[in-house]
Amino acid sequence: MANDRVTILNDTDGMALALAWAAKGMYITAPNPRIGCVIVRDGVVIGAGHTQPAGQDHAEIQALRDAQTRGIDVRGATAYVTLEPCSHYGRTPPCSNALVQAGLGRVVAAMTDPNPLVAGRGLAQLEAAGIAVSSGLLAEAARELNIGFFSRMRRGLPWVRLKLAASLDGATALENGESQWITGPDARADGHAWRARAQAIVTGIGTVKADDPQLNVRGIDTPLQPRRVIVDSRLEIALDARILQGEPCWIVAAAEHPEKAQALRAAGHEVMVLPNAHGKVDLPALMRELGRREINEVHVEAGAKLNASMLREGCVDELLVYLAPSLVGPGQGMFALPPLARLADKRLLRFHDVARVGDDIRILARLN
Amino acid sequence: MANDRVTILNDTDGMALALAWAAKGMYITAPNPRIGCVIVRDGVVIGAGHTQPAGQDHAEIQALRDAQTRGIDVRGATAYVTLEPCSHYGRTPPCSNALVQAGLGRVVAAMTDPNPLVAGRGLAQLEAAGIAVSSGLLAEAARELNIGFFSRMRRGLPWVRLKLAASLDGATALENGESQWITGPDARADGHAWRARAQAIVTGIGTVKADDPQLNVRGIDTPLQPRRVIVDSRLEIALDARILQGEPCWIVAAAEHPEKAQALRAAGHEVMVLPNAHGKVDLPALMRELGRREINEVHVEAGAKLNASMLREGCVDELLVYLAPSLVGPGQGMFALPPLARLADKRLLRFHDVARVGDDIRILARLN
Repeated sequence: MANDRVTILNDTDGMALALAWAAKGMYITAPNPRIGCVIVRDGVVIGAGHTQPAGQDHAEIQALRDAQTRGIDVRGATAYVTLEPCSHYGRTPPCSNALVQAGLGRVVAAMTDPNPLVAGRGLAQLEAAGIAVSSGLLAEAARELNIGFFSRMRRGLPWVRLKLAASLDGATALENGESQWITGPDARADGHAWRARAQAIVTGIGTVKADDPQLNVRGIDTPLQPRRVIVDSRLEIALDARILQGEPCWIVAAAEHPEKAQALRAAGHEVMVLPNAHGKVDLPALMRELGRREINEVHVEAGAKLNASMLREGCVDELLVYLAPSLVGPGQGMFALPPLARLADKRLLRFHDVARVGDDIRILARLN
Repeated sequence: MANDRVTILNDTDGMALALAWAAKGMYITAPNPRIGCVIVRDGVVIGAGHTQPAGQDHAEIQALRDAQTRGIDVRGATAYVTLEPCSHYGRTPPCSNALVQAGLGRVVAAMTDPNPLVAGRGLAQLEAAGIAVSSGLLAEAARELNIGFFSRMRRGLPWVRLKLAASLDGATALENGESQWITGPDARADGHAWRARAQAIVTGIGTVKADDPQLNVRGIDTPLQPRRVIVDSRLEIALDARILQGEPCWIVAAAEHPEKAQALRAAGHEVMVLPNAHGKVDLPALMRELGRREINEVHVEAGAKLNASMLREGCVDELLVYLAPSLVGPGQGMFALPPLARLADKRLLRFHDVARVGDDIRILARLN
């Protein structure tokens, strides 16, 4: 229920509050997007809600129900919603119908729905029913919140975020492999929040062998754990690896290894075989498969070799880099790339966000 | 002359304006500190000024003169000054005398003067004359503005800032040495502003041989060029190196090389011989010598070897790091340090400031 005592002075206030409600669904809505809706009359919030888990209410229905619970008539009021209301029967009936039936006076959407089943039809349907509509307010923030969902709708691919933790001079580990800990506790906790917003965590057999990580989400209140995906061309993973002891994993090999695969399957895990021409895992094919499986956001935590392969094969959308206030000197780098002959050949990024997290710095850098 | 139309509502406003005036003296006051003074009555700024070049007016005198020029009587007014007024005869007469004579009612200082010749005596003298005094307001900002002057007063050493430009993955150059340009034009221009606030730029013979830089200040409106100081243990510098073609340099060797030294001296440069026990330049001794020569801030732009020596020998106070949005892969690192056996032995820094500069990120990181 909305207990926002805030006064909504203008459309931007209304949409900002709807975005805050959307963010409350961060860990629960996948594979659906995180959407928020607030209903406002005379500057007062009379209903608010966010998308529930798949198959349950969308944000608009939650907000209408919130108003109803409080005995408030929403006729003529304005709804702020962070994505165009859906107009099709999916797992739930169309939200546009509900908004029309409730008699809303005006609907302000942050952006139209990139889902080809909606794509403007939701707003058109509202308009045809005499509701004033507009779209585009705070669109950038709305897009960021669901960057993976939109990536999947637009490209059939998840949004791939590759996480790194390094010293200021770029070392992710000592030459001897020691990497615990480069960054501080606040950055590590922040890293778990980024894991939690992904639906899959991808790592490589090298990291499994070296660090034996669990790669689950800890310290974040989330009902869903991301799927752990292990790139393991030769199916070398030990059956007693810690990552295999919890929820089922997806293990991706480059060839059939029937005996090992059977043992893994018997333990509840799935083995996929996705070879490329070089006898390695076909990483672009893996990303397409993850998209097909409705994974919106992928979180990669791997070593320099898999990081470099992901980068080289065009499978990375964003780097999530934690830099620690320390100097390590020679050590393992972020990406096992070959040396360049010319500086002009460097791979270009774009810094999207820079923040202090505890004693460390967090940088979000995007590819092209 | 002050033409600040701003209304001073409280002491913090007054001191913030005095700090802005202090910053106007950034490039001209050395070896004196950059000090600002504003005189306020009833919320109106009636006089303002900043330290002039050495031997000329201090900020307080400038502010008093500004009021006088405008025909305004300052009796009973409040002066905000970013450092305790001096109480001794140096190159100029004591400012405290002038403030007493002018009949100021109150003096608010950001901090007391660490110069042992002042150290509280300025404020005490004002108080004895019946002027209300206080100190400590915005002290941190006042200290930052003159971090080199205070370092020299307190330790007899300049504040040493080591500048680095690297890709996000920590490369300062390709393996083949190519380094132009890792960072973008805005970061390079910002780098010149940091050069300009230093009184000496230190580099090594390796950088002179590899890049043949001028290491002067370009694109910044400054009347003073920092002294270029070249660490060149074996006096290998070529007489036609570009750095030797402009203003005189100080060249620091580890042994007498009479013929070469004489040629350099004939060209107007100074050769210092400061050997350590290993046949290299004694860097701590060089820093002490720079302090003795009234250098407040030192700007180091060198290669990984000299950078590492400076670090190892405790000669670095701060790193000024520009990180570019690019990945380079294997290349030259920031510091040629030996590999660590344990991560616990990493060198700890403290991030002091993080900012976006053009497409790049600028990080100020301090040693202990």
